[in-house]
Amino acid sequence: MGHRYVRDYRTLTHLCLVARALGAEAIYLEEVERELLASVTEVNRTWGGDFRVVQEGWKKAFADAKAEGRTVVHLTMYGVPLQDVVSELRRRERFLVAVGGPKVPSEVYELADHNVAVTSQPHSEVAALAILVHELQRGEELKKEFGGYRLKIIPSSKGKQVENNP
Amino acid sequence: MGHRYVRDYRTLTHLCLVARALGAEAIYLEEVERELLASVTEVNRTWGGDFRVVQEGWKKAFADAKAEGRTVVHLTMYGVPLQDVVSELRRRERFLVAVGGPKVPSEVYELADHNVAVTSQPHSEVAALAILVHELQRGEELKKEFGGYRLKIIPSSKGKQVENNP
Repeated sequence: MGHRYVRDYRTLTHLCLVARALGAEAIYLEEVERELLASVTEVNRTWGGDFRVVQEGWKKAFADAKAEGRTVVHLTMYGVPLQDVVSELRRRERFLVAVGGPKVPSEVYELADHNVAVTSQPHSEVAALAILVHELQRGEELKKEFGGYRLKIIPSSKGKQVENNP
Repeated sequence: MGHRYVRDYRTLTHLCLVARALGAEAIYLEEVERELLASVTEVNRTWGGDFRVVQEGWKKAFADAKAEGRTVVHLTMYGVPLQDVVSELRRRERFLVAVGGPKVPSEVYELADHNVAVTSQPHSEVAALAILVHELQRGEELKKEFGGYRLKIIPSSKGKQVENNP
């Protein structure tokens, strides 16, 4: 929410790729530019999986998530510390995580089920998202495999090893 | 390493702020532009602490870190999965964490003590840094307090509460 495409293109790309890599099904963006969609499509094609980029306003995304029984977590430095709420959150299974740039409407704070802070310091919505989903999944997301890849990395202590799956 | 200022300004800012918020003492950048330094200085002044931005080439930063007994961890999607190496890393106390944009010299892979992957998928050096330092500190970094602040957030389940310390 509240990202401007020109200024925040790189942040939006990072949000998409982090969400995908850490196991999210989809990202909802208020505006989906063609270049961003092409980048994500290419990542899916190369590295596998079917992560989706959906154009949708935040109010509808919140309403749909709630109707489906998802818990809406808004990440904000003003919220309740993650470490104080993570046990409660882990009892839920499905989430919509909302992140914003500097200007987020106050309604977001009201409509979210939880306003959660990954530290009460200013830093990065990309990092906050990463730590939240890492904690919700207790690190299990690091082992996720992506189906239908063309390239797959073979972990290596030095250099780069890639498996080709043409 | 390998970030270009114009293209990567936002990523560099996020790297600085994430490093600071999650407890790093300093960040080493190959180029420090005035605008970036001003942003970080303002964050220190407002929110506390004395996080430093240092202009230094990666080779000197690596050499100095090794001379001081720091472990050099290079984050790369090609490296060894974090979950396979984190116990070993936690036995060390001081670190230099290296992150790069798409183009990192192959020497970096050779000179790092560990090449570590936070997933073997492409995503974001900001997220990878966040998850690494979160794991190294077992989440304790989320409780860090910053001295000498002018503003401090009072965690809140709805809205924004800030303590003013003029």
